[in-house]
Amino acid sequence: MSLNTFFSRLVPKEKKFFPMFEQLAELVVKAATLQLEVLEQINPVLEKDLMKSIKKLKQNGDDLAQEVFDILDQTFVTPFDREDIQALTSSLYRVLGMIKSVSQRITMYKPKAFPDECKTLAKLILDGTLQIQIAVAELQTLKKSERILKTIKKISKIESEADEMYHSAISALFKNEKDAIELIKQKEIIEKLEQTTDRIETVSGVLKTIVLKNA
Amino acid sequence: MSLNTFFSRLVPKEKKFFPMFEQLAELVVKAATLQLEVLEQINPVLEKDLMKSIKKLKQNGDDLAQEVFDILDQTFVTPFDREDIQALTSSLYRVLGMIKSVSQRITMYKPKAFPDECKTLAKLILDGTLQIQIAVAELQTLKKSERILKTIKKISKIESEADEMYHSAISALFKNEKDAIELIKQKEIIEKLEQTTDRIETVSGVLKTIVLKNA
Amino acid sequence: MSLNTFFSRLVPKEKKFFPMFEQLAELVVKAATLQLEVLEQINPVLEKDLMKSIKKLKQNGDDLAQEVFDILDQTFVTPFDREDIQALTSSLYRVLGMIKSVSQRITMYKPKAFPDECKTLAKLILDGTLQIQIAVAELQTLKKSERILKTIKKISKIESEADEMYHSAISALFKNEKDAIELIKQKEIIEKLEQTTDRIETVSGVLKTIVLKNA
Repeated sequence: MSLNTFFSRLVPKEKKFFPMFEQLAELVVKAATLQLEVLEQINPVLEKDLMKSIKKLKQNGDDLAQEVFDILDQTFVTPFDREDIQALTSSLYRVLGMIKSVSQRITMYKPKAFPDECKTLAKLILDGTLQIQIAVAELQTLKKSERILKTIKKISKIESEADEMYHSAISALFKNEKDAIELIKQKEIIEKLEQTTDRIETVSGVLKTIVLKNA
Repeated sequence: MSLNTFFSRLVPKEKKFFPMFEQLAELVVKAATLQLEVLEQINPVLEKDLMKSIKKLKQNGDDLAQEVFDILDQTFVTPFDREDIQALTSSLYRVLGMIKSVSQRITMYKPKAFPDECKTLAKLILDGTLQIQIAVAELQTLKKSERILKTIKKISKIESEADEMYHSAISALFKNEKDAIELIKQKEIIEKLEQTTDRIETVSGVLKTIVLKNA
Repeated sequence: MSLNTFFSRLVPKEKKFFPMFEQLAELVVKAATLQLEVLEQINPVLEKDLMKSIKKLKQNGDDLAQEVFDILDQTFVTPFDREDIQALTSSLYRVLGMIKSVSQRITMYKPKAFPDECKTLAKLILDGTLQIQIAVAELQTLKKSERILKTIKKISKIESEADEMYHSAISALFKNEKDAIELIKQKEIIEKLEQTTDRIETVSGVLKTIVLKNA
């Protein structure tokens, strides 16, 4: 019996979703933390281990999302709209998927270097996931929705910064990198990092919907 | 108070959607017009200004789409299915997003040249958005659905032409362009242009659903 | 009058969906079979004919999917949830679309060679579509859902294998291929093949939902 299953017998069903959202958000923060470490390190031994860890976090995320969906099927009273629970779970899960996709490309492509913008993007991603974690922790008391709305604004600012960073990273790459294969590698990693911030904004959009419906 | 907000107080709520759809369609046509100008010009000064304009149109589209969603939340009687209003708004908005994405790539990549097929694709896109504009203007009087169905057929023909154009553009590029980095640039711009025609067809599909449900 | 239209007059409406799903699944299997032949052949004459055939299968799939949606609109009693009929149809149709997209790239790019992993991926895709065909044939008697659940497990295994194959194919490509344009060609074909197995897993997910709801 998993911890969640045990937990689920003691807590009213409609409250069981909150700790699961928090766990999912925590996995996302952990993955974003590891990703930043990968991009700041050049040590390839460490790199390989971190990839394994991110793959494992993604697997945990899979299981956790599946558990949310299973419990949702058995629950009549939900803390907020069924479709929003699904959307929140899927969107959190997709951030994890995108971080895994960045890591995978790093191991497959083995780029010579990461442009500085990659590190900045990875930092912005970590900032974004930390905001998500704050917001998710506030979901249980939607009265305090001011705090959630504040994280949403911060995420929007992070996304704009990431967009500019992406734009200048790609422009610089095409200006400076004359090795086509190296350009392909770095271009795709930069693109996937930027897409991760888009996915974070999707989570933020779901959080906004939940707050507006329930405030 | 925005013009739309002012407008919304005078007009029965269910009729307020039509001018907003028309405004969105107009933004899409404007963006497609600017895009064609970008692809036909080589003057880089002009290019930079046009990019700014497209970014602004996209921002207007963002605001307008948000306004549709907000009003939808406050409206009980809608002119047609709630989900179709959402789908129409999102699909129009996504055409705009794709045009912005083409422009962004042009500024970031600075390709040496645009193959002629790019210009033809941009013309087909403009034609498609003009058909959308005609259809959206007819939505208020769904009795005249014949006209809308005619635009849908035209869009389907445009999409087929764009598909062929895309196919021959990419084939020619791989046959003739020996500079890998230049090939990457042009390939992605051609692909995004073709994806824009797909998005136009998505709008057309939503329009078809609306006509069939309400005719 | 098409065969399906004729058929639809004799059979109770709610049962008409099953033969259409079976026909769609058959088209998918045929396309996957042709794709494997393309990737195993080097004969370019044959290649061109096979492309035509795949395009035709895709067109048949278009028509068939449209017919499912039309009949769905006219039917009150459906064998299972309306949204699941839509999801099954779309997801089958998208496998076909992805196979067409691989074929298109082969004709447009004319790569010098296909790495062995491409052939293995094409074999895994054919295996996956055969499992789908088995599952779809069992849909009418959902009591025998054990068999469907077995195909779902097999598809999950196929997807894992495809994922590993993709990973090693791309790693090998970046290690060995020094011609950037050739790398672009093969990379994208490998990626599209892997995405096809993702789409097969989406079908499998829809089948699982149907079984769990109706068992």
